[in-house]
Amino acid sequence: MPIKFEILAEDKATRARAGLLHTPHGVIETPIFMPVGTGGTVKGMTQDGLEALGVQILLGNTYHLYLRPGHELIREAGGLHRFMSWPHPILTDSGGFQVMSLKSLGRVTEDGVWFRSHLDGSTHFLSPERAVEIQLALGPDIMMCLDECVEYPASYETLQRSVALTTRWAARAKNELARDMGHGVRDTGSESGISGVGARESRSEEREAGHVSSTPYPLSRTTCPALFAIVQGGTDKSLRRQSAEQLLDLDFEGYAVGGLAVGEPKSEMYDTVEYAAELLPRDRPRYLMGVGTPEDLVEGVARGIDMFDCVMPTRNARNACAFTSEGKITLKNARYARDDRPLDTSCSCAVCRRYTRRYLRHLFVTGEMLGAILATHHNLHFYLDTMRRIRQSLLFGVFTEFHCRVRARP
Amino acid sequence: MPIKFEILAEDKATRARAGLLHTPHGVIETPIFMPVGTGGTVKGMTQDGLEALGVQILLGNTYHLYLRPGHELIREAGGLHRFMSWPHPILTDSGGFQVMSLKSLGRVTEDGVWFRSHLDGSTHFLSPERAVEIQLALGPDIMMCLDECVEYPASYETLQRSVALTTRWAARAKNELARDMGHGVRDTGSESGISGVGARESRSEEREAGHVSSTPYPLSRTTCPALFAIVQGGTDKSLRRQSAEQLLDLDFEGYAVGGLAVGEPKSEMYDTVEYAAELLPRDRPRYLMGVGTPEDLVEGVARGIDMFDCVMPTRNARNACAFTSEGKITLKNARYARDDRPLDTSCSCAVCRRYTRRYLRHLFVTGEMLGAILATHHNLHFYLDTMRRIRQSLLFGVFTEFHCRVRARP
Repeated sequence: MPIKFEILAEDKATRARAGLLHTPHGVIETPIFMPVGTGGTVKGMTQDGLEALGVQILLGNTYHLYLRPGHELIREAGGLHRFMSWPHPILTDSGGFQVMSLKSLGRVTEDGVWFRSHLDGSTHFLSPERAVEIQLALGPDIMMCLDECVEYPASYETLQRSVALTTRWAARAKNELARDMGHGVRDTGSESGISGVGARESRSEEREAGHVSSTPYPLSRTTCPALFAIVQGGTDKSLRRQSAEQLLDLDFEGYAVGGLAVGEPKSEMYDTVEYAAELLPRDRPRYLMGVGTPEDLVEGVARGIDMFDCVMPTRNARNACAFTSEGKITLKNARYARDDRPLDTSCSCAVCRRYTRRYLRHLFVTGEMLGAILATHHNLHFYLDTMRRIRQSLLFGVFTEFHCRVRARP
Repeated sequence: MPIKFEILAEDKATRARAGLLHTPHGVIETPIFMPVGTGGTVKGMTQDGLEALGVQILLGNTYHLYLRPGHELIREAGGLHRFMSWPHPILTDSGGFQVMSLKSLGRVTEDGVWFRSHLDGSTHFLSPERAVEIQLALGPDIMMCLDECVEYPASYETLQRSVALTTRWAARAKNELARDMGHGVRDTGSESGISGVGARESRSEEREAGHVSSTPYPLSRTTCPALFAIVQGGTDKSLRRQSAEQLLDLDFEGYAVGGLAVGEPKSEMYDTVEYAAELLPRDRPRYLMGVGTPEDLVEGVARGIDMFDCVMPTRNARNACAFTSEGKITLKNARYARDDRPLDTSCSCAVCRRYTRRYLRHLFVTGEMLGAILATHHNLHFYLDTMRRIRQSLLFGVFTEFHCRVRARP
C-alpha cells in the first residue's frame, strides 16, 4: 500500500478520530488542513514559511499546472515536489472541479470532459485516464479520480446521472493506474491540443507516436501515488448511499466527499457530511473537499472527516480579511486605522507577535504585497492551530468539551 | 552628537574607507547599502526577512508616508520604527525628489515647493521647515534637508540657481531643527491641505491653533535625528565646489551627493562623485543618493562614498530581473523554461539554495507573488553581499585587488 492510515484516538461521543497517514513523502497527523498550492505555490507564502508554520501537506491544482507550466515540464523537473521544492506530502486534485466550474464551458461526455483554457481559449480534453496520466507526471503522494461536479442546485436526475458517471469514471481511473503500474513507465500523452477521439483511442495514437517517458519517482507498490475516489450525490442521502456503495465495491485507498460547499445551506452540508462519512470505511482516510471555515473544520471532524482543503484562509487574506479568535475582521475598515493591537490578541504567530492592525491596514490601503503576505501567514496559522487543537483534544480525550467551546464562540 | 562616525580602515590606493556609523537605533557597518522601504515596507520582504538578510538600515520615503498613512498617524503610533516594527536604523529622505520628479507638477518657489498628490491631485506645500517637521514626526535616525532636484540635462544657470536655493534651504532646515530641539516639543503642522502662505506664516497659524504634540522619541542632543545636507550642482565641478563649500560652512553631520543617476553618462557620474566626495570632510559620512548598480557601489566606495540607496535590486526583482555573479538575467526569458540551476550558481542565499530558474520563471509567467518575493530576497542578498565583500576587502587591506576583479567581470 502506498499509504497507511493509523487511528490513534477516537472520540466517544462523536465520530471524530485522530490518526497518522503515512505517505511516500512523510507522515501526516490527521485530522489535517491542507493549504491550497494552486499553481505550485501557496500565494504569498514561501516554502520556508510554510514549513515554519508546520504545514504538513499541500494541495496542487492539476488544472492550473497542466495549463502552466504543463505536466511534462514538471515531470522533466522530477515531479511537483522537486519543481516547487516541497519535499513533503502533496495531494493533487483531478482538474475536474476547475474544468467544470471556471466558466470554461466544459462539455461532459461519457468519455470525459471537453473544456477551454481560461487563459487562451484553447480546447482540451480531460478523461479519467488522462487525469491519472497528468497527475502521475506531477507525482503526488495522493491523487484524485476525475469526478463529475454538478452545479447547485441540481435535479435528482442530474445528480443520479452524475453519481453513475462518477462511478464509471472512478473504475476507469483505477484501471488506468493499474495499467501504468504494470508497465512501470507511462505514456506522456500530449500536453495540450485538440483531441478528436475518445480516451482509449488517443492513448493508442500516442503510444504509436512513441512518447514514453519515466515517472517522477519509480512506480511500485510502495511508492505509487494513492488514488482516492470522490463520493457525489448532492444533498440527497439515497444518492450519497448509492455513490458510496459503488465506490466501496471498487475499493480505493481513501474516499472524498465532493460536491458540497457549492451553495447549499450549512445545515444540509453538515447533515450530508455526517451521513456520507458514516458510509465510508473506518480504516480509510476521509477527505471533505473544498471545506471550509474554522467552524466547518470542527464540525467536519466531529462527523468523521480526516482531511480538509480550502482557499478561504489564503484568499481571504489577500482580500484583507483575517480570521481571529474573536471572529473575522476586515482590515481595511477605518476602525483599525489607529488600532495598535495585534491582529489577534490571542494569537502567537509571527505576525501577531510583531505587527499592529494600524500597520496592516496601511499595507492593504496602499496595496502593498506585505499586507497579503502577513495576513496569509496569520490566517494559515489560525487554521493550522485550530486543527492542532482539535487533534490534541482528541488525543487527550476531551474533544467534546473543545467542540462545545467552539460552538459557544461568537 | 546624535550620530558618531568612526573610520576603521582606509584604502591606500583609493579614497575608499570602512567604518562604523553609530545611530540612536544601532550601529551601521559602512560602506552600507540601504534598501528602500518606500511606504513603510520594502516591497515583497517581511521585516523578519530583512533582518535575516542582514539589512542594517532602511530608507523611508517621506513623500509617500506623508500622503499615506500621514505623518501624524505615524507619530501617534510612536514613530516609523514602531509603526513598521523595524527597531533598527532608518534614514528618511526629505520628500523633495518625489515631489519634483513624480510628474506631480511641483512648482518651486523661494519658500518651498507646491505639489499635487499623485494619488488624488490634492495640493500640498513642502518647505525646508515642513520637511523637518514631517520627518521628526516619523522619527528616523537620519533625515535629509529639502533640496532642489533639477531635471537632466539642465543649463548652468538653472544648476547655479538650484545650488544657491539648496544652500538657503539647508540653512533653514538646520534652524528649524534647532528650534524644535530647543522647544523639546514641536508643532504638528497639518497633514495635508492647501496652505496659501509661506512656511513661517503657516507655522505661526498652526501654533495659534494649538497643535502641539510630542515626538516619537524624546528630542535631546543624543537622540535627535541627524540632519544631512545634499550637495547639488549637476556634473559641473565649479558648482559642485560652490555647493559643498556653502554646506560645509553651515556644518552638517553628514553630506549627501544628490542630483546624479538622473540620466547623465556613467563616466560623468563617476567623475562628479570623485570630485564632490573629495570636497567633503573625511570625518563625516558621505551618502550617494539613488545609486546604483553593483558596479556603481564598488566605484562609489572607491571614490570615498559610505552610504548608498537604490530601488534597483527590489524594482528589478519585481520585473523578473535578477542580479547574478554572471550578470543580469531576465527570468521570463524562454531559455530558462527548463533550466534547473539556481538563479546564481555562486550564491548562497536562501533562494539559490532552494529554487530553480525553471520554477522562478513559472512563478513570473503566472504572475505569482512568490516570484517577486524570491527574486527580491536574492537581489537584496546580492547587493548586501557585494557590500559586505567590499567592506571586508577594506578591513583586510585588499580593496584594490577586489576592485580590479570586479572591473574585470563580464
